[in-house]
Amino acid sequence: MKKLINDPADVVKEGLQGIAAAHADRVRVMTDPNVIVRADAPVQGKVGLVSGGGSGHEPMHGGFVGMGMLDAACPGEVFTSPTPDQMLAATKAVDGGAGVLHIVKNYTGDVLNFEMAADLARDEKIEVEAVVIDDDVAVQDSLYTAGRRGVGTTVLAEKICGAAAEQRRSLAEVAGLCRKVNANGRSMGMALTSCIVPAAGNPTFELGPAEMEIGIGIHGEPGRERRQMAPAREVVEMLATPIVEDLPFRSGDRVLAFVNSMGGTPLIELYVLYNDLRKFLAARGIEPVRTLIGPYITSLEMQGCSITLLKLDEELTALWDAPVDTPGLRWGA
Amino acid sequence: MKKLINDPADVVKEGLQGIAAAHADRVRVMTDPNVIVRADAPVQGKVGLVSGGGSGHEPMHGGFVGMGMLDAACPGEVFTSPTPDQMLAATKAVDGGAGVLHIVKNYTGDVLNFEMAADLARDEKIEVEAVVIDDDVAVQDSLYTAGRRGVGTTVLAEKICGAAAEQRRSLAEVAGLCRKVNANGRSMGMALTSCIVPAAGNPTFELGPAEMEIGIGIHGEPGRERRQMAPAREVVEMLATPIVEDLPFRSGDRVLAFVNSMGGTPLIELYVLYNDLRKFLAARGIEPVRTLIGPYITSLEMQGCSITLLKLDEELTALWDAPVDTPGLRWGA
Repeated sequence: MKKLINDPADVVKEGLQGIAAAHADRVRVMTDPNVIVRADAPVQGKVGLVSGGGSGHEPMHGGFVGMGMLDAACPGEVFTSPTPDQMLAATKAVDGGAGVLHIVKNYTGDVLNFEMAADLARDEKIEVEAVVIDDDVAVQDSLYTAGRRGVGTTVLAEKICGAAAEQRRSLAEVAGLCRKVNANGRSMGMALTSCIVPAAGNPTFELGPAEMEIGIGIHGEPGRERRQMAPAREVVEMLATPIVEDLPFRSGDRVLAFVNSMGGTPLIELYVLYNDLRKFLAARGIEPVRTLIGPYITSLEMQGCSITLLKLDEELTALWDAPVDTPGLRWGA
Repeated sequence: MKKLINDPADVVKEGLQGIAAAHADRVRVMTDPNVIVRADAPVQGKVGLVSGGGSGHEPMHGGFVGMGMLDAACPGEVFTSPTPDQMLAATKAVDGGAGVLHIVKNYTGDVLNFEMAADLARDEKIEVEAVVIDDDVAVQDSLYTAGRRGVGTTVLAEKICGAAAEQRRSLAEVAGLCRKVNANGRSMGMALTSCIVPAAGNPTFELGPAEMEIGIGIHGEPGRERRQMAPAREVVEMLATPIVEDLPFRSGDRVLAFVNSMGGTPLIELYVLYNDLRKFLAARGIEPVRTLIGPYITSLEMQGCSITLLKLDEELTALWDAPVDTPGLRWGA
């Protein structure tokens, strides 16, 4: 296992110490239990936004804590749900009196633990709403999921809801907006290689030297099919066709096009993919008016990509464009 | 070769088309010869900043074109110097009457071609200065270099000089500042795996399953030594010790600490490395007051990292903090 780590058991802890030290101007890291919190939390009168999930998907979620996005993130062990006590601690740390929204990716462990944490927080008189993101069109149920998995749309929901919370919209409004983002976002991913979970030390799955997995999950869960390697333009077709057909996206739609690296794919390949994606969309009359291209929801060093399309309207576009100041996403601030 | 590309011969061209389409608000792409230009170039009365080099290091340089950083970037073929006609076209496109600075990484082809382009531009009455970045402490001469290689400090020089140019400082001042950044920046890198140049189809070099290369160049050029895998804290010592001793950095120095992924190393590992680096620095009384952590000067999908330290003073710190609005680096704008 070739990794730039010390003891595999310490990767999450030491990564958090690194984040805390590198970004002390924007975040602080609580330990026991582990929570990354916005430095100025709780912001009085603002809805608090909490997300979380297994580690290994950085910058999601810890890199998205800061002004205009999350108030706290709960990092679990690698590819393992955080615990309810982390989520409760996060909820209490960010409650500024306007309630707290939990943005939850649809994996069985995450959903159950966030439900438990919400109940515990309500016992302490904190108003909590939860929205489950389930945007992955690849498979209906999967290894860790009842229903669809939550993937790339989560990043977009965190940004957009974060901007709405900064405007001091109510918990009901921010939660409604989160459901709207989820309803209008669709994703699908693929892998060229597996990643290696540090504690396991071996690849999560095996792929032949000329094979790729279409519809992969962000923990290496099986996708729709294993295929022979194909050119980028065919990979884009394999991912974007089910995405577009599912919503469906229609001619005249304006979208945010998000081309994401699974962690090990270089940026130049993401631009090659985007070049094919914009042609694919143009042929269908769909206009990408905003883009996000880079590694934002990753699977350690896995090579591969995912595509997310979010149908935009004026409200979502304005919230996307609003200032954000986090370690992983930053503009206008 | 597992890559998300179409024809290997078209990677650079299609990547540029992707960049042009994704970031049309900030850049335009000229072809024949290939140049990425700031959308509003030339900016009248502002020194124009031009850099360039082989492709495969993205986001450097094309991703750093925009307000507060470069005015143009010349992308060569993968790991191949751009040509003088690209550099001349870029220089002419960004000349706003205040002269043009060429920021050149120290590789033989780049240096010769930028010299030729500067001569041609001067023939056309454009004032040109060039600064060569040679910050890599790993080796004195190497496969493509007389003297030290130019690596991570280039990113910092482009940001800092870009901010100074926005303040309408003169060509002599911006060039002097670039020399100052180079004089105060030191870097060293390492690799866990090779990358594969698309046109070659095979790994640039071979590393055993438990080996790493210390002092690697960004094209996979040999480094100082091949060693057995070691924990992150030891890797940090191997890189940071020669960096600190070279300048030398001293107790009381305030630095920008830049932990860079070679392309295939996940972000969580960079934070583990940064955690060890800050301890290394603390033990020597060196204070990291700014950080940059992520994939900024890469070698395709190579796994590995580099560390750059830049000694800061008030002037450099303020210019680093100034607004920047490029596809690859963006804040405060």
